[in-house]
Amino acid sequence: MTYKIGIIGASGYTGIELIRILKRHPEFELVATAALEAGQNLSDIIPCPFDVPLVSADDALKAGLDAAFCSLPSGASMKLVQQLRAQDVKVVDFSADFRVKDVAIYEKYYKIKHTAPELLEEAVYGLPELYRKSIAKANLIANPGCYPTTILLGLLPMIRSGDIDLQDIIIDAKSGVSGAGRKLENNLLFCEANENFTPYSIGHVHRHLSEIEDQLSRLAGESVSVTFSPHLLPLNQGMLSTIYVKLKKSTNFKDIYQKYVKQYQTEPFVKVLPQGKLASVRYVAHTNFCYISLTAVPEKNLLIIASAIDNLIKGASGQAVQNMNIMLGLPETMGLL
Amino acid sequence: MTYKIGIIGASGYTGIELIRILKRHPEFELVATAALEAGQNLSDIIPCPFDVPLVSADDALKAGLDAAFCSLPSGASMKLVQQLRAQDVKVVDFSADFRVKDVAIYEKYYKIKHTAPELLEEAVYGLPELYRKSIAKANLIANPGCYPTTILLGLLPMIRSGDIDLQDIIIDAKSGVSGAGRKLENNLLFCEANENFTPYSIGHVHRHLSEIEDQLSRLAGESVSVTFSPHLLPLNQGMLSTIYVKLKKSTNFKDIYQKYVKQYQTEPFVKVLPQGKLASVRYVAHTNFCYISLTAVPEKNLLIIASAIDNLIKGASGQAVQNMNIMLGLPETMGLL
Amino acid sequence: MTYKIGIIGASGYTGIELIRILKRHPEFELVATAALEAGQNLSDIIPCPFDVPLVSADDALKAGLDAAFCSLPSGASMKLVQQLRAQDVKVVDFSADFRVKDVAIYEKYYKIKHTAPELLEEAVYGLPELYRKSIAKANLIANPGCYPTTILLGLLPMIRSGDIDLQDIIIDAKSGVSGAGRKLENNLLFCEANENFTPYSIGHVHRHLSEIEDQLSRLAGESVSVTFSPHLLPLNQGMLSTIYVKLKKSTNFKDIYQKYVKQYQTEPFVKVLPQGKLASVRYVAHTNFCYISLTAVPEKNLLIIASAIDNLIKGASGQAVQNMNIMLGLPETMGLL
Amino acid sequence: MTYKIGIIGASGYTGIELIRILKRHPEFELVATAALEAGQNLSDIIPCPFDVPLVSADDALKAGLDAAFCSLPSGASMKLVQQLRAQDVKVVDFSADFRVKDVAIYEKYYKIKHTAPELLEEAVYGLPELYRKSIAKANLIANPGCYPTTILLGLLPMIRSGDIDLQDIIIDAKSGVSGAGRKLENNLLFCEANENFTPYSIGHVHRHLSEIEDQLSRLAGESVSVTFSPHLLPLNQGMLSTIYVKLKKSTNFKDIYQKYVKQYQTEPFVKVLPQGKLASVRYVAHTNFCYISLTAVPEKNLLIIASAIDNLIKGASGQAVQNMNIMLGLPETMGLL
Repeated sequence: MTYKIGIIGASGYTGIELIRILKRHPEFELVATAALEAGQNLSDIIPCPFDVPLVSADDALKAGLDAAFCSLPSGASMKLVQQLRAQDVKVVDFSADFRVKDVAIYEKYYKIKHTAPELLEEAVYGLPELYRKSIAKANLIANPGCYPTTILLGLLPMIRSGDIDLQDIIIDAKSGVSGAGRKLENNLLFCEANENFTPYSIGHVHRHLSEIEDQLSRLAGESVSVTFSPHLLPLNQGMLSTIYVKLKKSTNFKDIYQKYVKQYQTEPFVKVLPQGKLASVRYVAHTNFCYISLTAVPEKNLLIIASAIDNLIKGASGQAVQNMNIMLGLPETMGLL
Repeated sequence: MTYKIGIIGASGYTGIELIRILKRHPEFELVATAALEAGQNLSDIIPCPFDVPLVSADDALKAGLDAAFCSLPSGASMKLVQQLRAQDVKVVDFSADFRVKDVAIYEKYYKIKHTAPELLEEAVYGLPELYRKSIAKANLIANPGCYPTTILLGLLPMIRSGDIDLQDIIIDAKSGVSGAGRKLENNLLFCEANENFTPYSIGHVHRHLSEIEDQLSRLAGESVSVTFSPHLLPLNQGMLSTIYVKLKKSTNFKDIYQKYVKQYQTEPFVKVLPQGKLASVRYVAHTNFCYISLTAVPEKNLLIIASAIDNLIKGASGQAVQNMNIMLGLPETMGLL
Repeated sequence: MTYKIGIIGASGYTGIELIRILKRHPEFELVATAALEAGQNLSDIIPCPFDVPLVSADDALKAGLDAAFCSLPSGASMKLVQQLRAQDVKVVDFSADFRVKDVAIYEKYYKIKHTAPELLEEAVYGLPELYRKSIAKANLIANPGCYPTTILLGLLPMIRSGDIDLQDIIIDAKSGVSGAGRKLENNLLFCEANENFTPYSIGHVHRHLSEIEDQLSRLAGESVSVTFSPHLLPLNQGMLSTIYVKLKKSTNFKDIYQKYVKQYQTEPFVKVLPQGKLASVRYVAHTNFCYISLTAVPEKNLLIIASAIDNLIKGASGQAVQNMNIMLGLPETMGLL
Repeated sequence: MTYKIGIIGASGYTGIELIRILKRHPEFELVATAALEAGQNLSDIIPCPFDVPLVSADDALKAGLDAAFCSLPSGASMKLVQQLRAQDVKVVDFSADFRVKDVAIYEKYYKIKHTAPELLEEAVYGLPELYRKSIAKANLIANPGCYPTTILLGLLPMIRSGDIDLQDIIIDAKSGVSGAGRKLENNLLFCEANENFTPYSIGHVHRHLSEIEDQLSRLAGESVSVTFSPHLLPLNQGMLSTIYVKLKKSTNFKDIYQKYVKQYQTEPFVKVLPQGKLASVRYVAHTNFCYISLTAVPEKNLLIIASAIDNLIKGASGQAVQNMNIMLGLPETMGLL
């Protein structure tokens, strides 16, 4: 059976990467939208080989969709998701609009009034490694942010272990430029970002903290607060978080390593690297994988977790397809290997 | 003696590179302007180590300048140059406004009405290797474009030699992204220009053709027309033109090579590479040098000239300082080695 | 039916890209070799997500292969291809060893003694757009070089048209660094190639001239000789050739454009861009497409063809899979979209 | 007065950058050496515009040097420094051979037998912001490592303040590729380092820990141990360390900021950025500056220090010239602005 699938907002970087993946997906027929470029073809706007006609969102809503990816900015997404859900269309939403249940936290970090709070209840946070069963039964998936994906996958086996100090986690994160989207801003110009490396929104201010701390707190069963420092890397696609956690005295590194191996041994897209190897960006780019490496620092009683993904794929469009596959009952890896 | 020197338009890429050079120049006291950021310091706008206060152009005009660099866009520059020349301030102008004597050609290529034609007579085209003597006596210098600098230096020894077919010159040119200036345009975004390479304005349409063909025709004593294909390179600073010229049958490559050596042996900033070596961008970047290499293709009776510069230095700010030094009677290389 | 497919030489850049494609291919079971790393897994050597065990070539020869990709250097490949063909294994060979029928030309350009001339007869040059029918019947495919792929696809509709001067073709070509392979050479170091752009082997000396001129001459029915100037681009994957051809006087540009459209309208991987658009590298990278753009220069009676591919995909591994699909009677695009 | 200055080991990245600086230095006459390329000119080896003849180290030792920069690898340097000091030549040494007084620590981190321990006493650690007075009287300067320069300058005002927990410092550091030198290693190839980002030697193992902890302990008057995680950035020149320090409860951020301002207000090459701005690499590259930014994280009682330099300039050759100027009694900034 083939599904009619909407791509709401196809002309950004996540939209293009989504189409690249879906072109390899045998079960999906696409209806793609672009607010400003309806009536044109995607290959008219971006010099890519995807001849995808673009329609307006209104036309997509009339097309009899089975399901939709909604790739609009936070704030703009919630209205469209309301309309899709009113038609009982299943949705994977890329924005932050449904990632945290607490409207106050959302509004604090995003400075946006939430106008669809009634949908928060049914929304499932789309990290398959954590919520696979709920995703299978869901109708609305809040696709995680890219930084949170690296961080949650990197910390997952530790949070409930009782092995680490939950109040002393430092995350030094680095993202390729596509993470900022296709926006005309000075710091995103080639001559500013190339041969550059720069921290931004460091400490305890970045918007992704809302979902990072929300998810960590749910997992831990207590309030968890982290230090989070993102930096901009001079490359297109790729992200790596270096995470520093304090171990409680008695912890044995071999046991920790085994917890990671056990947690992820059946996961199709998470790879715990052999001891002595370190996660890096180069070959995880253009795939849906997350690489995790573990380094013990016995002198300081620390564990350093390095967690790498492609920010546009496992950090956005690939994970969205993974979620859609699960939600529709298709094989989870379809189109992604 | 110290000169009071204006920098009109200091906050673009050529402006910053100019200030970097002038900070090393022992004879210049700077008065820098920026239309939108007057009242601020350059280091407030660009995170550079140059603590240069920015004033308005009006304030600069009242400052009693001895000379000025005018680094405004073509079209905007001519008015300010008029005001500076009315005060008898010597000017090196970075724009195209005074590069060609023929107003009709300027207006055809730039689609701008020329409002200061009375200054064209006194303007000298600022290629020191060609017009050093006139520059020394000038009050207004039209600083050459970056592409024309590579091309004219690359072709100079051939044009009057009678060795080549003047109507069959093909120039395949490549520029780093800073050549386009600090503008918010889609194709200048990091994620578009990085891991990309793209031709633009190829054939016989790019605006620099006006000065390339004008200068070549003057040198040749006959009308010269060329094919000129620029491309955008994924790097910050650097430019290389690959120039294909047809040799008349009898030409001996050793004689040609000797003509280049002879032409440039006393030039401080032009280096003819040894036979067998090819010009490249990496180490000419961040210098005021032009590297030229020559390759004979006897099978095709062709000469391939590769000519490389830093587009912001020998292609703009470095050459401007070289011109200013000559015009003010200072040592030509001051601040540039 | 599933085929047992050998990958002889899996640990170079073309090998890794080949495995990336074949992992998506539903019909192939892989047996991969690496001379130095037999016994290890590909992901031990390269931090990639492909858990592919590596065996020796000898073991691969005993594995009962149906077909093989041979991704060894020119000179090393011919011996292994002999062994594979002796077992009647169908082969797509990446090297230059079987690309030209004339041993003397091969030995002149490659400085290697040819030790398998008996196989030259049955070898088919694997450009599907030109030799699809022969490929379908072949047992040995000589997969084309990356530069020749851009050039032959760019020139194909012109060669037999009678519209151009076949003795006056200038090709200014640019390749990403992966084209040079994974070799420890100074000029391939990051700090040398980054922020650099450099010509190499320009004029009439590069080894790919052997197959470029051989194929053009076959197509034209007369000896064709070209000027060919490769340059090294500071990017990983991508290649663009800018080709200058002289038009015979009476030629109409619309007719030329229609010849290209007609030639490629049914081709799955060649896209003739709309007039006014120019081929570029960014979005053709990581695909098996070739983009072609055409620009008329009426002032000079020239046509400028820009032809762009991913040098590792349509320039190597993607085209190899396309050839293998055709040779095995599978759908040509399988695994490639 | 002009000094005859040796550059021992001129053909590496620090050597070339040193020559670039010294070409602007009015007081130095250069004698450059290269072990493998003696008899050639620097511009024969590297396509740079520096026509510097290269001699053997033996010839340099006979040239009557006043002072020398020794830019050899750790281990190779100590023997040559012995010979230079035996002739009473003043030396700035780039290697790690004289950076720590404790031979056991040196031998533990560098796995090299120290054969010149008699020189350790007279060696002064060449961080001018810390040891300017001793440098002025010294004959042998151990030029600091690049990472230690960012870290020590970033931490200096805090170490003796009593404001921070000296046993809980986490340093997440990032370096451009030139920091690894001009070596033929797989991970330094363009196609491996480009579009990549990778941690290496993280935790408590990198060799620079020897001097970082030695200097911090001297400053603190107690043993200080840090966590130090270097990463490789895909750019040529530039380095940034993100340093996380725990504040003792009562600390006021304004007071901390004032301590930094006070510490560095008269320093020519250290710039404490205004509050709210963050240090980055782009415009500190190609200069001798160190930029420092401070970010308070009141929620976590943390201070985040970002410290950026050009690893080849303030991290090596620029700082070496600064030290040489001080040692010879010349203006400290000569050749460096």
